[in-house]
Amino acid sequence: MKFAERTKHLKESAVRNPLFDQPGMISFAAGKPENIIFPIERLKKLVPFVVENYDYEAFQYGNTSGMEPLIDFIKNTMMPRAGVIEETDILITSGSQQGIEYSARIFLNEGDTVICEEPSYTGAFAAFASYCPNYVGVPVEEDGMNIETLEKVLKEHPEAKIIYTIPDFQNPSGCCMSVEKREKLAKLAKQYEVFVIEDAPYRELVFEGKPYPSIKSFDTEGWVIYLGSFSKIFCPGLRIGWISASQKVIKKYFTVKQNIDLHCSTFDQLIIAEYFKKYDLDEHINGLKQVYRKKRDLIVDAIKAYFPADISYTVPNGGFFIWIKLKESIDASELLLKAAEKEKVVFLSGEGFFSKPGVKNYIRLGYSFIEKEFIEEGVKRLGRILSQN
Amino acid sequence: MKFAERTKHLKESAVRNPLFDQPGMISFAAGKPENIIFPIERLKKLVPFVVENYDYEAFQYGNTSGMEPLIDFIKNTMMPRAGVIEETDILITSGSQQGIEYSARIFLNEGDTVICEEPSYTGAFAAFASYCPNYVGVPVEEDGMNIETLEKVLKEHPEAKIIYTIPDFQNPSGCCMSVEKREKLAKLAKQYEVFVIEDAPYRELVFEGKPYPSIKSFDTEGWVIYLGSFSKIFCPGLRIGWISASQKVIKKYFTVKQNIDLHCSTFDQLIIAEYFKKYDLDEHINGLKQVYRKKRDLIVDAIKAYFPADISYTVPNGGFFIWIKLKESIDASELLLKAAEKEKVVFLSGEGFFSKPGVKNYIRLGYSFIEKEFIEEGVKRLGRILSQN
Repeated sequence: MKFAERTKHLKESAVRNPLFDQPGMISFAAGKPENIIFPIERLKKLVPFVVENYDYEAFQYGNTSGMEPLIDFIKNTMMPRAGVIEETDILITSGSQQGIEYSARIFLNEGDTVICEEPSYTGAFAAFASYCPNYVGVPVEEDGMNIETLEKVLKEHPEAKIIYTIPDFQNPSGCCMSVEKREKLAKLAKQYEVFVIEDAPYRELVFEGKPYPSIKSFDTEGWVIYLGSFSKIFCPGLRIGWISASQKVIKKYFTVKQNIDLHCSTFDQLIIAEYFKKYDLDEHINGLKQVYRKKRDLIVDAIKAYFPADISYTVPNGGFFIWIKLKESIDASELLLKAAEKEKVVFLSGEGFFSKPGVKNYIRLGYSFIEKEFIEEGVKRLGRILSQN
Repeated sequence: MKFAERTKHLKESAVRNPLFDQPGMISFAAGKPENIIFPIERLKKLVPFVVENYDYEAFQYGNTSGMEPLIDFIKNTMMPRAGVIEETDILITSGSQQGIEYSARIFLNEGDTVICEEPSYTGAFAAFASYCPNYVGVPVEEDGMNIETLEKVLKEHPEAKIIYTIPDFQNPSGCCMSVEKREKLAKLAKQYEVFVIEDAPYRELVFEGKPYPSIKSFDTEGWVIYLGSFSKIFCPGLRIGWISASQKVIKKYFTVKQNIDLHCSTFDQLIIAEYFKKYDLDEHINGLKQVYRKKRDLIVDAIKAYFPADISYTVPNGGFFIWIKLKESIDASELLLKAAEKEKVVFLSGEGFFSKPGVKNYIRLGYSFIEKEFIEEGVKRLGRILSQN
C-alpha cells in the first residue's frame, strides 16, 4: 500500500475497545455525558422553531467562522465566564478535538517540541500524532502542572512551540490548576514566547465553588489559545466547540477550517444558540453539576470502602474522571483483561495518557456516563480484583 | 510567529470574496444550492420526530463510522445508484470536502505526485495544499479527462500516488466523463497501481438521461475511493458526505476521522436518514433537476444572445456550472474587477481552477444559486463588458 509516512503514527482510540460493549459489563471507561442530561423535551420544541425561524439559512452553506448567533453567545457569555471580557476572535470547530488537531497542524513541523502535562488527554496525543512531535512532559500535581518544572523545561527547550494543558478537572487526573499557577503559566508563555493551548471542555463543571478564571484571562499578548466545547455541557453529538484566540492567530485557524471542511453544521450551531437564548445557562449547568457531583460522591465513597489501602487518588472537584495510582508492580492493561473476564468490570488503563509508553500502574475511572446504580457494584468488583494483585 | 511550514501554502478561498456581497450585485460566483430547494415545511415536522424517535442517541457521542441508519441508506440506495452493488465500507465525513483532505493526508508525503484534471475544483487544491504535492495535469474534454494523456502521464510518473477526478458535471468545466473513459480509467488505476479519488457530489443532478455508472462501479480491486455528498442534493449546512472504499483503505480514513474530530453530527446524520425513509429520493432529485435545468437553459440562452462570438463553452448536462473560454488576451481577474465596478456583475476567475497559475482567460459561471429572474440581466451585463475587451 502506498500510504503516507504520517499514517504509521495513527492508532485506534483505546476508548473504543469492543471489550467495553459486552453484555453485563459495568464500564468506567467512557468519557461521555450521562444520557439523562440531554434536554429531550425542550429540544423537541426547539428544533422546529429553529427551522421556522431561520428557514433556509439553517441548511445552506454558512460562514467558515460560524453562525453569528452562536459566536455572539460565546463572546458575550461563555468567554466572559472564563474571565475573558475584551473582544476575542472566535472560530467554531467540531468539538475542542478539532481545535487540538488544528493547533498541531498550524504550529508543528515534524519533530517540533510540545510541552505537555503528564498524564494528559490520550485524544490529544492521537491528534498530534500525524505531526510527529517531540514531547517534553511536566508532571501534574493536585493543583495542576508543576510550574517550576515547566520553567526549567522552557529554559532547556527554547525551541518549544506549544504548551498543551487542560487546566480544569484534567482528563485523566481530575486535577484543577490553581489560579496562581494559571497566572504564572500565562506569564511564562509571554516570557518564553511559546503558545499555550488551553483545552477547557470541563471548566464549567465545578462541584464546589466557582470555576477559576481561564489561563487566557491572564494573557495580555495573545499567547494563549482557548479551546471551548459544548460536548461536556450540552450535546456532544452536535460536535460543536470553539477556538478563542488573537486575531493574528485565529486567521490561521480560519484558513485551515476553510480548506479542510468549510464550516460546522449551521443547523446544530443555531440549535445551541437558540437553546441558550431560551433557557438559562446557570440553571442548565447547575443541573449537570448535581448529577455529576452525586456520582463523584458515590464513586469516592465506594473506593474508600472497597479498594485496598495501597492505591492513591485525588478527589476531583469537577469533571468526569478519577485517576487511580496502583502499586508499582501492577500492569493496568493486564488488570483490565482480568477485570473484564473475571468480574465484568472495565476502565481505561492509564498508559495511553502519557506521552511515552512505560507507565503501567495507573487507571482512569470515568463516573460521568455509568448509571449511578452501578457505581458501587462496579467499584466493589474492581476492589476484589485489586485485592488479589 | 512560529507557524508551521505547511501554513505558508494555505490561502483563503476565492469564493469568499467580499466583492461578491455588495448590494445590487448580480453574482454567478457561488457554487451553492438554490435556497428554495430546502424542504423547510417537511423538515419542520421531521426534526422533532428525529428527537422523539432517537431520544438521547441523537445527541450523544456516536460511532466514528457514522450512524447506522444513514450508513444503511448509503449502502442500500446511494451506492447502488452509482452502480456499486457489492457491500462497500462507508465512513461518514463532513462533506466530500473532508474526504478530499483526508485523501491527501492518507496518501501524500511532501512532494508526492497527484494527477489531476485541468481545470479542477479549486477547493481540492486548497485541501491538498498543506501536503505540498507535485501536480501533473491532464486536460478535461467534453467527455472528461483525456485518457491517452492520462496513460502517458501514468507511464512517465510511476511514483504517482493518486488521480483526483470529478467525473460528473465537473466543477468548474461542467463536463461529464463518458462511460468508456470511466471504465478505462478504472483499468488504468489497477494496471498502474494508483488510487483514484472519485469526487462525485453532482452525479445525481443530470438533466437529460440517467447518471452514468461511477468509476468505482468498474473497480475490481479497491483502487477507487468514492467521495459522496448530500451538500448538492440535500442540505449543505448539515455538512454530511461519505467515503466508500475497500475495507483496507477505509480503515485508514476511519482512524484519521477518529483522531481528528471523532465523528460527524449524530443529529444531522439521522435527519438525512429519516428524511429519505419518509420521502422518495427520486421525487426529491427530480424536483432539483427541474430547478437547475431551467436555470441552465436560461443561462445558455442568454449567453447565446448576449456574449460576443469569440468565446467558447460547453453546454452542461447537469450540475451547477458553465465554464467559459475567453479570448487569450483577456485576464479574467481584471475583467472581474471591471465587471463588478462598472456593471455590478461577478463570477469566478478561472485561474484558481488550474494546478499552477498562469491560465488567465477562463471564467466560471455558477447558475445554481442565482435567482432565475436575474440570469438574463446578469449575462447581458457581462456581455457588455466582454464586448468592450
